[in-house]
Amino acid sequence: MGRFQVTFQPADRKIYVEEGENLLQAAMTAGIHINASCGGSGTCGKCKVKIVQGEIDYRKNAKLSPEEYTLGFRLACQSHIKSDLIVEIPLESQIDRSTLALKGDRGTSTYLLSPKDIYQLVQGWDVDPAVFKRYVELEPPTLQDNKSDLTRLISAINRQHNINGISTDFRVIKKLSHLLRKADWKVTVTLVLTRKGYKLINVEEGDTTKQNFSIVIDVGTTTVFGQLLNLNECKVVACPDGNCDGSTLFALAEASDYNAQISYGEDVITRIVFSQKPGGLKKLQETIIGTINGIIDELLRMSNIDRNLISHLVVAGNTTMTQLLLGLDPKFIREEPYVPTANFIPPVRAINLGINLGEHVHVYIFPMVASYVGGDIVAGILGSGIFQRERLTLYMDIGTNGEIVLGNKDWLASASCSAGPAFEGAGIKFGMRATRGAIEEVSINPHTYEPMILTIGRTKPIGICGSGLIDAVAELLEVGIIDQRGHFLENLSTKRVRRGPDGFEYVLAYKEETNIQEDIVLTELDIENLIRTKGAMYAGCKVLLDSVGLDFTDLDQVIIAGGFGRHLDIEKAIFIGLLPDIDVSKFIFVGNGSLLGARLLSFSKELLKETERITLMMTNLELSNHAGFMNEFLAAMFLPHTNENAFPSVMRRLRARRKVAAL
Amino acid sequence: MGRFQVTFQPADRKIYVEEGENLLQAAMTAGIHINASCGGSGTCGKCKVKIVQGEIDYRKNAKLSPEEYTLGFRLACQSHIKSDLIVEIPLESQIDRSTLALKGDRGTSTYLLSPKDIYQLVQGWDVDPAVFKRYVELEPPTLQDNKSDLTRLISAINRQHNINGISTDFRVIKKLSHLLRKADWKVTVTLVLTRKGYKLINVEEGDTTKQNFSIVIDVGTTTVFGQLLNLNECKVVACPDGNCDGSTLFALAEASDYNAQISYGEDVITRIVFSQKPGGLKKLQETIIGTINGIIDELLRMSNIDRNLISHLVVAGNTTMTQLLLGLDPKFIREEPYVPTANFIPPVRAINLGINLGEHVHVYIFPMVASYVGGDIVAGILGSGIFQRERLTLYMDIGTNGEIVLGNKDWLASASCSAGPAFEGAGIKFGMRATRGAIEEVSINPHTYEPMILTIGRTKPIGICGSGLIDAVAELLEVGIIDQRGHFLENLSTKRVRRGPDGFEYVLAYKEETNIQEDIVLTELDIENLIRTKGAMYAGCKVLLDSVGLDFTDLDQVIIAGGFGRHLDIEKAIFIGLLPDIDVSKFIFVGNGSLLGARLLSFSKELLKETERITLMMTNLELSNHAGFMNEFLAAMFLPHTNENAFPSVMRRLRARRKVAAL
Repeated sequence: MGRFQVTFQPADRKIYVEEGENLLQAAMTAGIHINASCGGSGTCGKCKVKIVQGEIDYRKNAKLSPEEYTLGFRLACQSHIKSDLIVEIPLESQIDRSTLALKGDRGTSTYLLSPKDIYQLVQGWDVDPAVFKRYVELEPPTLQDNKSDLTRLISAINRQHNINGISTDFRVIKKLSHLLRKADWKVTVTLVLTRKGYKLINVEEGDTTKQNFSIVIDVGTTTVFGQLLNLNECKVVACPDGNCDGSTLFALAEASDYNAQISYGEDVITRIVFSQKPGGLKKLQETIIGTINGIIDELLRMSNIDRNLISHLVVAGNTTMTQLLLGLDPKFIREEPYVPTANFIPPVRAINLGINLGEHVHVYIFPMVASYVGGDIVAGILGSGIFQRERLTLYMDIGTNGEIVLGNKDWLASASCSAGPAFEGAGIKFGMRATRGAIEEVSINPHTYEPMILTIGRTKPIGICGSGLIDAVAELLEVGIIDQRGHFLENLSTKRVRRGPDGFEYVLAYKEETNIQEDIVLTELDIENLIRTKGAMYAGCKVLLDSVGLDFTDLDQVIIAGGFGRHLDIEKAIFIGLLPDIDVSKFIFVGNGSLLGARLLSFSKELLKETERITLMMTNLELSNHAGFMNEFLAAMFLPHTNENAFPSVMRRLRARRKVAAL
Repeated sequence: MGRFQVTFQPADRKIYVEEGENLLQAAMTAGIHINASCGGSGTCGKCKVKIVQGEIDYRKNAKLSPEEYTLGFRLACQSHIKSDLIVEIPLESQIDRSTLALKGDRGTSTYLLSPKDIYQLVQGWDVDPAVFKRYVELEPPTLQDNKSDLTRLISAINRQHNINGISTDFRVIKKLSHLLRKADWKVTVTLVLTRKGYKLINVEEGDTTKQNFSIVIDVGTTTVFGQLLNLNECKVVACPDGNCDGSTLFALAEASDYNAQISYGEDVITRIVFSQKPGGLKKLQETIIGTINGIIDELLRMSNIDRNLISHLVVAGNTTMTQLLLGLDPKFIREEPYVPTANFIPPVRAINLGINLGEHVHVYIFPMVASYVGGDIVAGILGSGIFQRERLTLYMDIGTNGEIVLGNKDWLASASCSAGPAFEGAGIKFGMRATRGAIEEVSINPHTYEPMILTIGRTKPIGICGSGLIDAVAELLEVGIIDQRGHFLENLSTKRVRRGPDGFEYVLAYKEETNIQEDIVLTELDIENLIRTKGAMYAGCKVLLDSVGLDFTDLDQVIIAGGFGRHLDIEKAIFIGLLPDIDVSKFIFVGNGSLLGARLLSFSKELLKETERITLMMTNLELSNHAGFMNEFLAAMFLPHTNENAFPSVMRRLRARRKVAAL
């Protein structure tokens, strides 16, 4: 794959992109605004550019006239880069923002790690899964040597593979005698290394060592992700849609679905309330198991792998999701002083939970730190390698709940700061999760207030996801459509700002440009929700730092995890005050940290021990009823923050703009 | 309890007995023949004796006239000794056998150990059960200390009882949160020490440490025995019927029943055959579980202990019984080269087997050595302490199968030699196991050929058990009713020898003296079966000794285990050639060795490790298809043996008798 230079005229802005990159995406990444209101689906015809020089792959489209085509005009959203390019932005789209430096150059930003780099966040592990297979050939018994079948098998494993101290699952014993004879004494054993040594969990006829798979599941409050891994080959698998953020790295297949518990409540608190109703806990357990089984079915279908070849299941989730999955009453998670039932869960047999996998499959449940700092966070800390480094790192998982961890190889402190799942789309009128059709990037022309929107999958928009929301609010603030309180300014020369049923709103896409039958808007209420959510995250980080006598400026690194996909714009997140106003080179983005950790753990038994160590070393700070937190939260309910000194670069930019000055 | 001298006249034979001993029993023990054909039930009136001096407890009985009573006559079977006594045997019962010395003085013989002595066969263990309870008080959680409930509990156990490395049963976790709060943070935990460390298996409200019980089960092919133990108090519990042979020592309650699998076959081979029919294995498993559940119910009823207070179940059985109990197909136990499925079985949850105990109860299955040397033998070796001593010991378990172990603390070799379960009553016309109504001791008047029989429970006889059978055959041989081939001599001056439907037979009790509606006889076929069984046992021992280059004369000790009860007469067993003709002081009898070992293991976690070591150090010699064994077996099909040199003392006695000379 080549890497090409694209020069946008007349701004003369150059960026470097991979071969095949979509040109509209490249422009967005470069901070070049091009009007576009259909999300990149090729239906609005607005993202017209002129290819001055160079080669592109182009999907022809009726939105351009034959004359325009002949003159070299193309729709940017239908163009894929095949060489160095010079591109001219037509007047109607032009806006020179290069001096603002608001747009980071996301394509070359350090915070977007390559998949390989993400895997190198954790050092010192080899591909050596805790669940592994070995082929053994046994000497058939004779009258002179008629030891038991199990003893014969264990001895052969000892001798042929130098593995000792093996205990055995009773279910293996039950089928052993017939299986050994049927297999003519040539079998493949599946072993698992637990805290208590090796355990023989399965025996199969013949040599199946080449086929050893695991499934990892991230049980989110809103979304459940699953991946199927080949435990024998920890190698980079290309992302099917070429849009890989590392989350599918090493995975043969990936599937996801809403957590079907959503019907019983949008967040953990409402789920816990439901669980207290008669039959509620059982219902919630069955529901999440149903979701997981659906994902497993999908993964098996996609990869065309037999169910019986799955040897292991790793599950990471927040504490409430984990307890519901296990059928452990979460009542006391919600009640002060917020006590979970257990931090470490012993291996549970998948079928005992109702999970539709072979009877030998045990579920490894990521251990939890506290009621609101769960296995997903432990997995993220594992995957991002914080526990190994000297550098002071802040880990932020921004999802339905916001969890943060601060520390380095010597200490770790955690906190949870939930103030509404706005980033997952909840509480936002057209909010949605980061899937096909979600507006994930937004730019607004400061003169015309016309938007440039990009959707996931480049289809017509159907809603807006977390990163789009951050972009949109940052842009609205930047161009002076809203003030620092998040209130719309009146009497702007655009029809896009209008009064809707919920108060003022900005039209991101008109009905005819969408895949739904209505305008997609962002309301003042939406913005208020976003401010509350980002304020809680920021305040949590502040209080956690304060608690150990440190400040944001002391941070060597900030790791962002969460469901944003690759299009979270760090600088815009700083602009609205979600992230601290520090050097952007300190930020890195690891995507779904929970799945990252779960995958790594599947591949390395060394990391099993590290997981335990991480959990035990993490100290949790309880923010509920924490006086300092409430003060910080109120102070953060502003764009970017009431304390302007904390956001010097943002304030410089805001003051540099007339529209800000006009507030 | 006093100890008194009883002098029998006119033989002037003196013995020492415990206060309260039954006088007929004392006479039998002393080798004094008194006619008695109702088994000691007081119904035949034949065991009339005259109390010359001393005091007895006497139950008045219509079988004596007032004149006889006034003259000092009493029925021996209704008399209990209360002081030193002088007893005169009436003429009709008299037979001076003191010169024959055939009858050992069983009451004072070294081979009958006291219960205390039996427990001292194994050294170096304390009462420190692997399954134990501890009371813990937890600090209730606060916002400053809101670790998980499980972590809080485990920390408290660590701190208050200095027990570390505890893993937890998931079922405990499921109920933990509510239970801790209901119990106001004061609970009793049940922990079990396994090969992999401590496991928390139960949590109860409040302090229940005083109530920690276990059940031990000996699963025999014919009979299943169960005992209920108080794990907190390993103290001697008096045997309810005053007839204690140590088997109920330390047990709060004992119950037994036939193995209900008997309906599907009398021995292990027929059971295995049945297991191969469709549904057969499942049926056999359900059947034995049913028997075990019945015994558990009975134990709980007898001891009035709540089911939930049982913390542990220990099961010892032969390999086939163990596999059937676990639902492991025993097919390959029967097929050459006789391979069992496993030697070591991981702990299995009782309820998963269908055993009706608390869900926290795990079953410890005694490990097995080979297809025909099972957990019952390992338990016996554990209980009898052979593995600890220098002395070369032969351990013989004489039950439905005969198993033998030879060795000392440095090595152990085992073999199995089954040739029919005659000692358990199978293959014997009136054979029965050693329960109430079984003729357990037999003496025959050499002049009149009249028998003296004693039954278990001193009731009218209903059959004959193993020890009675040995006594009877030895006596028949001794008095010259049968020859060394086991054939009846003809034309003897007694109606008790007669031709029956199965050939010649000897009448032990006439119909009217029995509790069944027919004469109880011993047939030539019965004797043939006994000879086959005893021949196999002897031949097995011989071959096992040969295999290590040793002889019977090298033995320092012979330990006899099995279902005989306390009344096996070692000298008679030697007389028929079941046991080797060596110094009788080398024999000791431990009763049910399997239960003995199971009880000890319940009390001591130290012995858990020893059990594993015993199993691993035992080498099994396969006697099937063993040429040497077949030769030895054929040579042993004689009373006592075709090799007269091997039985010098028996041959001296036989030759001393005219009737032997007449053969």
